[in-house]
Amino acid sequence: MLKDNEQLDDLQIKGLEIIQNKNKFRFGTDAVLLSAYAKIKPSGRCIDLGTGTGIIPLLLSVKTKAREIIGLEFQEDLCEMAERSVGHNKLDGRIRIIHGNIKKVQDLFGKETFENVVSNPPYMKNGSGFQSEDESIAMSRHEIMCDIEDIAKAAEFLLKDKGMLSMVHRPNRLVDVLSVLRKHSLEPKTIRFIHPYAYKAPNLFLINAQKNTQPFLKVENPLVMRRDDGEYTDEIYEIYGMERK
Amino acid sequence: MLKDNEQLDDLQIKGLEIIQNKNKFRFGTDAVLLSAYAKIKPSGRCIDLGTGTGIIPLLLSVKTKAREIIGLEFQEDLCEMAERSVGHNKLDGRIRIIHGNIKKVQDLFGKETFENVVSNPPYMKNGSGFQSEDESIAMSRHEIMCDIEDIAKAAEFLLKDKGMLSMVHRPNRLVDVLSVLRKHSLEPKTIRFIHPYAYKAPNLFLINAQKNTQPFLKVENPLVMRRDDGEYTDEIYEIYGMERK
Repeated sequence: MLKDNEQLDDLQIKGLEIIQNKNKFRFGTDAVLLSAYAKIKPSGRCIDLGTGTGIIPLLLSVKTKAREIIGLEFQEDLCEMAERSVGHNKLDGRIRIIHGNIKKVQDLFGKETFENVVSNPPYMKNGSGFQSEDESIAMSRHEIMCDIEDIAKAAEFLLKDKGMLSMVHRPNRLVDVLSVLRKHSLEPKTIRFIHPYAYKAPNLFLINAQKNTQPFLKVENPLVMRRDDGEYTDEIYEIYGMERK
Repeated sequence: MLKDNEQLDDLQIKGLEIIQNKNKFRFGTDAVLLSAYAKIKPSGRCIDLGTGTGIIPLLLSVKTKAREIIGLEFQEDLCEMAERSVGHNKLDGRIRIIHGNIKKVQDLFGKETFENVVSNPPYMKNGSGFQSEDESIAMSRHEIMCDIEDIAKAAEFLLKDKGMLSMVHRPNRLVDVLSVLRKHSLEPKTIRFIHPYAYKAPNLFLINAQKNTQPFLKVENPLVMRRDDGEYTDEIYEIYGMERK
């Protein structure tokens, strides 16, 4: 089942395992936190834009009661690997991995046919910072294939009235995210900043935005990763389903 | 010097005192924190939009090296009271209180003649929540006379190239503030959330936005008011210039 440079990683939740390539982009804390934060409607249809290894659909399949979870991915080899992970976990009945471009969702799906859209997009503007020479890694970190506006446009097309887009992004892009979502009728409803320590600046934020609703944002209590002594906080233990030693 | 229902309050910094009316809107923590947060250019001109009692100009006069500080206020009785506070502190040479409407700054000041604009505006949308029957209090809490966009428009007109607007506002208006500022060429550069306790949701935020500059926001470390034991944090002691007992 595994190809060269691939390994099978235990997701520490209900026996889930995921295939990852040691030399490519591997999932991080952000995907795990987003899967725990997204408000997924029971019995609804959910789509993950830019699913990569398929980590978010896998986690949502055990954490939520979504009826169908679709993972859309542009890179063919990642699609194929994510499909093997889905099959390995016997989740073919609930998760579908689909090869396609976020900019062309109208060719793949019906208008307003999803209750939820989730996305852990590339964080950096194309051309900014250090860009990996590995094309696959570069695409997952930099806005080469899609940017915040492409995701907002896709979500606006895919979501039913009052459907929810859930994302994770970096604080330095906060103005971009909030303005673009509002522009596309996706009103930010809750936002939660993730801080490495309680008194340190946040390095990520989670957001739920609802289609066609009134403005009123709740900035939630901070999600703190570690206590002052360096140990993970109780909440992080809970999200990861770990037991404190 | 004091009229009916007025009292003289000690600002606990360099002997400053301020006149306030016991029955009207009195300054709060937000004005003090904003005065400490605003990045004021030395030798520059600064204007406070909606100065009320004049608290922000008074604090900026001792905390910064601004050459001239103007407090603009629409309510005539507040202007008159703020002027008496300025006179009482012998700050007539540096602070001027001007009666006028934020929506008509072009009739009062030259275009692009200020290095800094600051504002502690009304937080609530007109018609939302409980609205005071006292017109003066209602105007300072609700967007009756001016809203975020009026302030952004005024700041865009008044600020020189690369000038800075500094504001304080409530987290539930974050999307409004960020989108409106960007719309008026005032790019949010730093933002700091104010939390009552480290693990509680923020109830205010401070923001510095610069005119005509590139997007890149720094979400700073949280400003925490109280430690877990209920005592003010060291930073709050420092901002208020208090000594811990």
